[in-house]
Amino acid sequence: MNAPQELRTDLTTYMKDVGQRARRASVAMAKASTATRNAALANLAAAIRARHADVRAANARDVEHARAAGLESALLDRLQLSDVHIDQMAAGLEQIAAMPDPIGTISDIRPMPSGIQVGRMRVPLGVIGIIYESRPNVTIDAAGLCIKSGNATILRGGSEAIECNRLLASMIADALRASGLPEDGVQLVATADRAAVGLLVTMPEYVDIVVPRGGRSLIERLMRESKVPMIKHLDGVCHVYIDDAANLEQAIRIADNAKTQRYGTCNTMETLLIAGGIAPSVLPPLARVYAGKSVELRGCERTCAVLQAAGIACVAATEEDWHTEYLAPILSIRIVADLDAAIDHINTYSSHHTDAIVTDDHVAAMRFLREVDSASVMINASTRFADGFEYGLGAEIGISNDKLHARGPVGLEGLTSQKFVVFGHGEVRT
Amino acid sequence: MNAPQELRTDLTTYMKDVGQRARRASVAMAKASTATRNAALANLAAAIRARHADVRAANARDVEHARAAGLESALLDRLQLSDVHIDQMAAGLEQIAAMPDPIGTISDIRPMPSGIQVGRMRVPLGVIGIIYESRPNVTIDAAGLCIKSGNATILRGGSEAIECNRLLASMIADALRASGLPEDGVQLVATADRAAVGLLVTMPEYVDIVVPRGGRSLIERLMRESKVPMIKHLDGVCHVYIDDAANLEQAIRIADNAKTQRYGTCNTMETLLIAGGIAPSVLPPLARVYAGKSVELRGCERTCAVLQAAGIACVAATEEDWHTEYLAPILSIRIVADLDAAIDHINTYSSHHTDAIVTDDHVAAMRFLREVDSASVMINASTRFADGFEYGLGAEIGISNDKLHARGPVGLEGLTSQKFVVFGHGEVRT
Repeated sequence: MNAPQELRTDLTTYMKDVGQRARRASVAMAKASTATRNAALANLAAAIRARHADVRAANARDVEHARAAGLESALLDRLQLSDVHIDQMAAGLEQIAAMPDPIGTISDIRPMPSGIQVGRMRVPLGVIGIIYESRPNVTIDAAGLCIKSGNATILRGGSEAIECNRLLASMIADALRASGLPEDGVQLVATADRAAVGLLVTMPEYVDIVVPRGGRSLIERLMRESKVPMIKHLDGVCHVYIDDAANLEQAIRIADNAKTQRYGTCNTMETLLIAGGIAPSVLPPLARVYAGKSVELRGCERTCAVLQAAGIACVAATEEDWHTEYLAPILSIRIVADLDAAIDHINTYSSHHTDAIVTDDHVAAMRFLREVDSASVMINASTRFADGFEYGLGAEIGISNDKLHARGPVGLEGLTSQKFVVFGHGEVRT
Repeated sequence: MNAPQELRTDLTTYMKDVGQRARRASVAMAKASTATRNAALANLAAAIRARHADVRAANARDVEHARAAGLESALLDRLQLSDVHIDQMAAGLEQIAAMPDPIGTISDIRPMPSGIQVGRMRVPLGVIGIIYESRPNVTIDAAGLCIKSGNATILRGGSEAIECNRLLASMIADALRASGLPEDGVQLVATADRAAVGLLVTMPEYVDIVVPRGGRSLIERLMRESKVPMIKHLDGVCHVYIDDAANLEQAIRIADNAKTQRYGTCNTMETLLIAGGIAPSVLPPLARVYAGKSVELRGCERTCAVLQAAGIACVAATEEDWHTEYLAPILSIRIVADLDAAIDHINTYSSHHTDAIVTDDHVAAMRFLREVDSASVMINASTRFADGFEYGLGAEIGISNDKLHARGPVGLEGLTSQKFVVFGHGEVRT
């Protein structure tokens, strides 16, 4: 993947130019009125509807190239845009346009003893870099959120989607220009050279934050290389803990849904914890639900004993299982002594993404809420709810496992900052 | 400063141990009730009052060693604790104890169409590392803010203050123990080896955030080395812009105060911008105020022409002057065409710390507020107001020039994070 020195120099020059253009455009993006930014979103939505067939055709060419290049079928699936996907891109933009504008909001204005009034104004971050793979709808979703939040954007999509992404980028540029915004407000990195990603994450002078959306290997690479802060999560090792005081029917419903509603998502449960007292009554019927869906169960010693007594297959879980995000019909199960042991297990093995308790005991529920150190902590609900739409954020740019700046599902607010604003009347400091 | 390999290995083992202890203690610190954390603060305040003479004596020994070692007088000044300083340490802790507890606050609970209710709970960050120099009151101020916000803390004070810091650290440990909190909740790195700082900022597994309080060379070093996010600012190149529509008397008062109330603080004005129309009337009387306080003036060509015509000395400013934080009785002055030119100058040369406009024009004021990209933006007030006390935050751990997580003066809130909390009733995702 290493380009010859000559090309690398060209690439560095090119990426620097992209960065400088973005930095310059960010001034106009930040100053633009709510109406202007919403008009750009509406223009873009209309263009996508009008050029539906062109988008479809560009995507079909990408799919054809990818198939010829031997891309595996799961990735081909993710690359392919259906008519519904294309309609959803336009509808998503219209939803973003209809959301309240966060930019310019002034909150918490308070008078101080000195006479000044101090408040906070929400402002854009500046320049956002988005790194993603496969499906080109991310191009539109990410551009929409960044335009709405008054940021300039540098998009770096996967090389396999390059034809469709180029078409969409030209439509975005047209929509920006038509509403009086700079075309450089959203730029697509137009090279398949993977070194471009390394350059994008090492230009803190031009890029304020990077949102990588991709697999573990991409995120791990960027964590090593990046000089720019990131909104990211590495793993989703999510837990459901069934407390002694759980309602049985509810516990089975939630534990079933959290594991089996979709296997491949980051908010899917990977480990089920069950309090010792309720395990004999909840485990056999729940395991039968999983067995009916061909979910492989990997249990601690006690779990396997309970299941084998009930005639249900159970593999002995290893230490590694407690750390593993299966993203597959596999579930690890551990019987724990009590709430304390459950919280200990979660704070040790969880990826701090999303963890839930099922209980009718108020004290246990509130302790779990306070003491589990994860981005989303839930009482009596499926971990699958942890996303921007279900949380009412409207849309999400990603989910963050970090504690700083943005934690959990990240919507428009995570793409903004707050500055202090001071209203004075000639006050000076004494 | 490089220790022999053997000592470095010991130091690494030592710092890892400190980190692990802090991580373990952070669990108890986060769980502790409001009353427990406030009791620790009250215990510590009482101990400082009771052992006033001991603190004074330990500080005197540090000062004596530093004097013998030839420490320069400005640093000796900053090392020395007066009776007032010691009283202020105790009073500061009592003020922090009296503040509302941010931890556990649940806000913005909203019902979602699915039936779940989604809110956000404020929680500690975990482990905070504080790196500072000279005056040992920072030991108490920082420990107080971190205890109140439910964090574990690793303090790394200057080696010149080691005797006093050790005494204060033992008093902090006593206060924590007396209120039922772990002694490791606040640890002092008890070595003068400067390599300890490098280790502290490269243990992201044990340290969640680092707050460096020190000069430019420390911050620059940490920006290169740190693998842990930081709350920091590098420079305070702050501006006052006197608009054409400024009230003359107010403009002179604010521009005087912003420069001369204290020369060495980060929120002191370093560059004065004046609109062309008002320059001939505001510049001569203002320059006479500065001349009376022996402030050296470095002006653009037009500024020097106006001043020299009025018989006031003016040095020609160079490009470097616009970038410089003097921290001294020196001021650079530029006459600009209009508001746009002023905003351009500020967004180009400001360190994004604090910038103010003086104007009676509403439109100009609101444009300045929106378009100046700094942590604090002020209308008709002195830049000197930019600190935690004047903003009503109660106390500050530092001032941040970054846009992510915490911006501007950082109080308790910057030492916390928010997690999503979900209250369900058995809901599952469909």
